[in-house]
Amino acid sequence: MPKDKPLDYQSEPSRDDLQLIVRKDMPFNAEPELPNLVQHYLTPTKYFFCRSHGPLPQLNDDHTISIKGIGLASEFVVSVKQLKSDFKEKTIEMAMQCAGNRRDGLHKVKFTKGVIWGPGAIGNASYTGCLLKDVLASIGIDKKLENISSLHLAFQSVEQCEEDRCYGSSIPLSKALDECGDVLLAYKMNGEPLTRDHGAPIRVVVPGYIGARSVKFLKSMTIQDFESESYFQRKDYKVLPNEVETEQQAADYWHKVASIGEYNVQSYVCDPPDGMVKNYGGPIKVRGYALSGGGRGIQRVEVSGDDGITWTLAHFRQQPKCDTHTTNVWAWSLWEADIHVKRNTRIVCRALDSANNIQHEHPMWNYRGVMNNSWRTFDSEKRENSNL
Amino acid sequence: MPKDKPLDYQSEPSRDDLQLIVRKDMPFNAEPELPNLVQHYLTPTKYFFCRSHGPLPQLNDDHTISIKGIGLASEFVVSVKQLKSDFKEKTIEMAMQCAGNRRDGLHKVKFTKGVIWGPGAIGNASYTGCLLKDVLASIGIDKKLENISSLHLAFQSVEQCEEDRCYGSSIPLSKALDECGDVLLAYKMNGEPLTRDHGAPIRVVVPGYIGARSVKFLKSMTIQDFESESYFQRKDYKVLPNEVETEQQAADYWHKVASIGEYNVQSYVCDPPDGMVKNYGGPIKVRGYALSGGGRGIQRVEVSGDDGITWTLAHFRQQPKCDTHTTNVWAWSLWEADIHVKRNTRIVCRALDSANNIQHEHPMWNYRGVMNNSWRTFDSEKRENSNL
Repeated sequence: MPKDKPLDYQSEPSRDDLQLIVRKDMPFNAEPELPNLVQHYLTPTKYFFCRSHGPLPQLNDDHTISIKGIGLASEFVVSVKQLKSDFKEKTIEMAMQCAGNRRDGLHKVKFTKGVIWGPGAIGNASYTGCLLKDVLASIGIDKKLENISSLHLAFQSVEQCEEDRCYGSSIPLSKALDECGDVLLAYKMNGEPLTRDHGAPIRVVVPGYIGARSVKFLKSMTIQDFESESYFQRKDYKVLPNEVETEQQAADYWHKVASIGEYNVQSYVCDPPDGMVKNYGGPIKVRGYALSGGGRGIQRVEVSGDDGITWTLAHFRQQPKCDTHTTNVWAWSLWEADIHVKRNTRIVCRALDSANNIQHEHPMWNYRGVMNNSWRTFDSEKRENSNL
Repeated sequence: MPKDKPLDYQSEPSRDDLQLIVRKDMPFNAEPELPNLVQHYLTPTKYFFCRSHGPLPQLNDDHTISIKGIGLASEFVVSVKQLKSDFKEKTIEMAMQCAGNRRDGLHKVKFTKGVIWGPGAIGNASYTGCLLKDVLASIGIDKKLENISSLHLAFQSVEQCEEDRCYGSSIPLSKALDECGDVLLAYKMNGEPLTRDHGAPIRVVVPGYIGARSVKFLKSMTIQDFESESYFQRKDYKVLPNEVETEQQAADYWHKVASIGEYNVQSYVCDPPDGMVKNYGGPIKVRGYALSGGGRGIQRVEVSGDDGITWTLAHFRQQPKCDTHTTNVWAWSLWEADIHVKRNTRIVCRALDSANNIQHEHPMWNYRGVMNNSWRTFDSEKRENSNL
């Protein structure tokens, strides 16, 4: 339900320190230059993409979160202070990727609805907080709950937004309770308190899932036997079939198509940033990122300087650390390769994940422009005029 | 270590009832005709592919399995009889797919080593047995074991084989102990006692993983901090890089490349079996299968009768049943579509799984010819001479 009166952006934080390309001012959406993005294994906050849906709330540690729904006799309320003091602290390193990362590649094929992100709507950070499963266990919710596979945990945010009353989303309750799922209620990012751009004072962090499920400014959690009814769960973040090209056509499909949880296998050439060399045909160093969803690690990245005819194995600059408790991999891999590049030819990469899924050549266009993991695309005009 | 004397195939079972195309006689390897494969949601045994590595053992329910290794003070021995009487029986429906399914598509690109399977090295069955995690729990092994992410459960088979002393393989111990992993020690298939071709009297069944990990004629299980040292874990069933083209080159890579566990997203046109129509340009009904590894369900299958230019959404003839305990999907989906087909053009399909991975157009050739999930391939000669 859209708002009656315009949203008020008078109290946005200072963003002087951020070194980002602004894709939209209000709400604030911005991403880094690609060479900056792959400079550091843990992305500094100044280079970390910002994705907001409305004016940013101003909250402190007295802020409380309510928990209610199936399996709970009454509503529980917990403050950020209590989350910090009463639960074991856990830090995980993970990639946070917007479902719309690389939407620009699909938008070149045909109009897509949404902020036209480049390939920088992604970052890799350490998040610190308490495990959501511990919080739920403390009020008696665990995997013994009946019919657990049909239950969802719906998150509501304090963040107002244009498309709905407030931002919201949900994940399967089984993901929240997964022993190795590492879903956090996080209050730190890269060792520092969360900034408002990243959901201060408390956000959900769902490793292996699209960023949209990692709800910022968390206000409430509800255990229910249906997905969140939020616009962002029901009418957004879905891979609609190719034939759906308008809002009107989409209306017939939202309820038929699954909402996105885990993201797919992904990699991108970030340096050189335009993915080609105009006046040079020799060997160059190429750098980029690679990751996959659902805890699947990256086995291999291959890079081609002749538009996919021959491939060179990249080597990893840095890979995720192993956890002794789980085989899940949540963080990205940074890679580089020395390759020969044909003049005026796009440089492409493809990653192979631990489930042996690989990136495909052709963009899978969809109206919302989500989950783009094809090889790099160029419009032919740009290819001709590229001037690195 | 290859055998000193030739393997003895004198006591193979009668296979008169099987309706399969034999790819190799000794050891017996055979797959169904494609239209038969997608006739039934649960593949009847007569249409179920057989993959063996040597002469089939003759065992009965007195056969015992030993369990030893890290976390166990001594060796435990359990008979098939005890597994049937002492543990809760569980039935799951799941697809069993050979890593070499569709090797023929890669072999057309360049020589691959292995039985040249078509797209029928797959079946969907109900398996009944006891949960491996229950058996391990009964001797004190559970997820509390230290450093669990670095531990493996190695299976050894009674089956002798050409490539090694006997067949063997391993899975991560965390998969074996996963609450929702559904790994079975199975003694029935489609409600009947296992046949020798499928591992009687007892086999491991690892849902979501390649068939090679579902070890038949189980003899022993060992908890260890390294993968199985078997040929089939270390020197086979790996996606070697493209540049590895010979056994000698492979020798430098086996230890560098991950062994395959979960399989990738897959679908195939099974009817018409040759995937094209020579003399007809009208609408036809197309049928096939679709599945993905690691418990990921299929969201959508699209079919193209014009070599991938336009796509039609298939509808599902039958999809996996939901389990109330887990969101994992182990069984395949059967689908059909009515499409217009251009004369002499391959019909291709592509599936999208719940992690938004999709099949790619071009075969990813690798020396062992495993994990082929590209669109259908034709050699141009066959395309011209096809006569359905």
